Amino acid sequence: MTDLQSKFLHVYSLLKSELLNGADFDFTDDSRRWVERMLDYNVPGGKLNRGLSVIESYKLLKLGKELTEDDFFLTCSLGWCVEWLQSYFLVLDDIMDGSHTRRGQPCWFRLPKVGMIAVNDGIIIRNQISRILKKHFKGKPYYVDLLDLFNEVEFQTVHGQMTDLITTLDGGKDLSKYSLSLHRRIVQYKTAYYSFYLPVACALLMFGEYLDNHVIVKDILIEMGIYFQVQDDYLDCYGEPEVIGKIGTDIEDCKCSWLVAKALELCNEEQKQILYENYGKEDPSCVDKVKDLYEALKLQDEYLEYERTSYEKITNLVESHPSKEVQAVLTLFLGKIYKRQK
Amino acid sequence: MTDLQSKFLHVYSLLKSELLNGADFDFTDDSRRWVERMLDYNVPGGKLNRGLSVIESYKLLKLGKELTEDDFFLTCSLGWCVEWLQSYFLVLDDIMDGSHTRRGQPCWFRLPKVGMIAVNDGIIIRNQISRILKKHFKGKPYYVDLLDLFNEVEFQTVHGQMTDLITTLDGGKDLSKYSLSLHRRIVQYKTAYYSFYLPVACALLMFGEYLDNHVIVKDILIEMGIYFQVQDDYLDCYGEPEVIGKIGTDIEDCKCSWLVAKALELCNEEQKQILYENYGKEDPSCVDKVKDLYEALKLQDEYLEYERTSYEKITNLVESHPSKEVQAVLTLFLGKIYKRQK
Repeated sequence: MTDLQSKFLHVYSLLKSELLNGADFDFTDDSRRWVERMLDYNVPGGKLNRGLSVIESYKLLKLGKELTEDDFFLTCSLGWCVEWLQSYFLVLDDIMDGSHTRRGQPCWFRLPKVGMIAVNDGIIIRNQISRILKKHFKGKPYYVDLLDLFNEVEFQTVHGQMTDLITTLDGGKDLSKYSLSLHRRIVQYKTAYYSFYLPVACALLMFGEYLDNHVIVKDILIEMGIYFQVQDDYLDCYGEPEVIGKIGTDIEDCKCSWLVAKALELCNEEQKQILYENYGKEDPSCVDKVKDLYEALKLQDEYLEYERTSYEKITNLVESHPSKEVQAVLTLFLGKIYKRQK
Repeated sequence: MTDLQSKFLHVYSLLKSELLNGADFDFTDDSRRWVERMLDYNVPGGKLNRGLSVIESYKLLKLGKELTEDDFFLTCSLGWCVEWLQSYFLVLDDIMDGSHTRRGQPCWFRLPKVGMIAVNDGIIIRNQISRILKKHFKGKPYYVDLLDLFNEVEFQTVHGQMTDLITTLDGGKDLSKYSLSLHRRIVQYKTAYYSFYLPVACALLMFGEYLDNHVIVKDILIEMGIYFQVQDDYLDCYGEPEVIGKIGTDIEDCKCSWLVAKALELCNEEQKQILYENYGKEDPSCVDKVKDLYEALKLQDEYLEYERTSYEKITNLVESHPSKEVQAVLTLFLGKIYKRQK
């Protein structure tokens, strides 16, 4: 664990303790224990990339100057708000997707004593973001912008999730609506805003910037987020399970993945028939037929080509940005994901 | 339908249309249709008491003066935010409680095409409140207070819901934790804040008041909310199903109801044994044994006594408030619930 990670985790403990001991709710001992266990189970166990990137971005904006202790704590708190938001999405997504494992352990709602209480727990996680912001940022000139930002990003994400859910629902009967443009729409809203735009937007607000002046930064980060999700879709089928930490099931789950959308664009009528008949089925022989078709359509080459042009496009956008500090932030993000294997 | 109700419903249509046609999300036709149907199914079908009381409260604060068109629209919008919040809680509560019907129709998540997508739908309903507030109140001096208020009230409610859920979970094995003080704690947080305090707080903010100066108003409204929930618990067992619109199942569901908490306070060891053995069971003969015990303990008389003293206490608190306008608001609320049969 790096020094930054351990300092970041220390702030988690502080924030958690404030939430559990606030004067504004009269916890019973049982309910305090419940929330603590629920947080420890769901919030800090990921790679923490999104949270840490708030701190890294803010440092780059400050030209690498050492942060004051106060500033460091505040950037960490915003980093944790991003992690809290991610955790909220994951707890609820797992319920909706009927998933079994997450981050190497059973999904929270799968624990025998939890079940559907996990819905309320997810909401508690979301609501705690507002409490952290109120406690540490109320009075700052950008407090209201932070509240608006988290609301806005949540809005984009849950609408992307909805488009995904109802598309998948209809896809079970009919793939005709799947396309690359629909895929782009879903992943832009469902993943890119909260994973890429949100951490940078937090850093910009703390730095005293108005987000309305940074629409280009947003667009570039959304582009990166889409690229990131295409990688995710690719790795779901072609990644090593030991490396990516899970066995992909996008084909079985009838997901509007980049691969199936690309396949539908490339295939002839006969191949389309194969997709329609075999996509979204649990049966391993159906899954194999879909994978064989991907092979015949040379989707791995198509992916490499997508990666190349996407990287080039993003690099050009980054280099044309007028601020060197902002360029450094964007380059940091791109470096983290380019050619990733997990 | 009164004139006020129909005007209020007209504002619902306007708000819905704004949400479905905003420039900030690129809806597919399918997803726009989904959200519209989801809203129509879940938001406007209740008694609208909470929403309408924002308007009534604001009018009383303005001494009955006719509201400008703008002011009327804004109070209606806040009223709808309260109704939206209620709808969000109900959609998710029904999932957690495994309920079947709500407001005379199947619960949203019970519809075949919906299922667990209802979790995301609930969150969309919540998030739309932030969008309504941003669209119509951003720039008002009390905008940030409105955001804080809705976050605060959501916090109280979901923590109350959590205490209720884990209490009921444990109660299935052991009633020893049930008590009147635990009951009070649950209903205060779970019901009173959003049903009683929130509508008045919205009206006070629009009227230009600081909520920090109205802690007494809050306390009185919370007291009324608790009384309201005790009535609810009473009616669950003793109300006419045709009048209250449902068949109560608090006994079967092992709820920490006012009745069982009061019974535990009054009963002797032998009676306690009967409760422990029969409470929280589906079997009708168990339910009957619990009801017989309530009879033996004269819980209906206890309830009448509770209602009398509670009413007296609240009336005294209202009469000691220095502002006649605020008194009028509080009296309005108390009048709506005193001796209600549904």
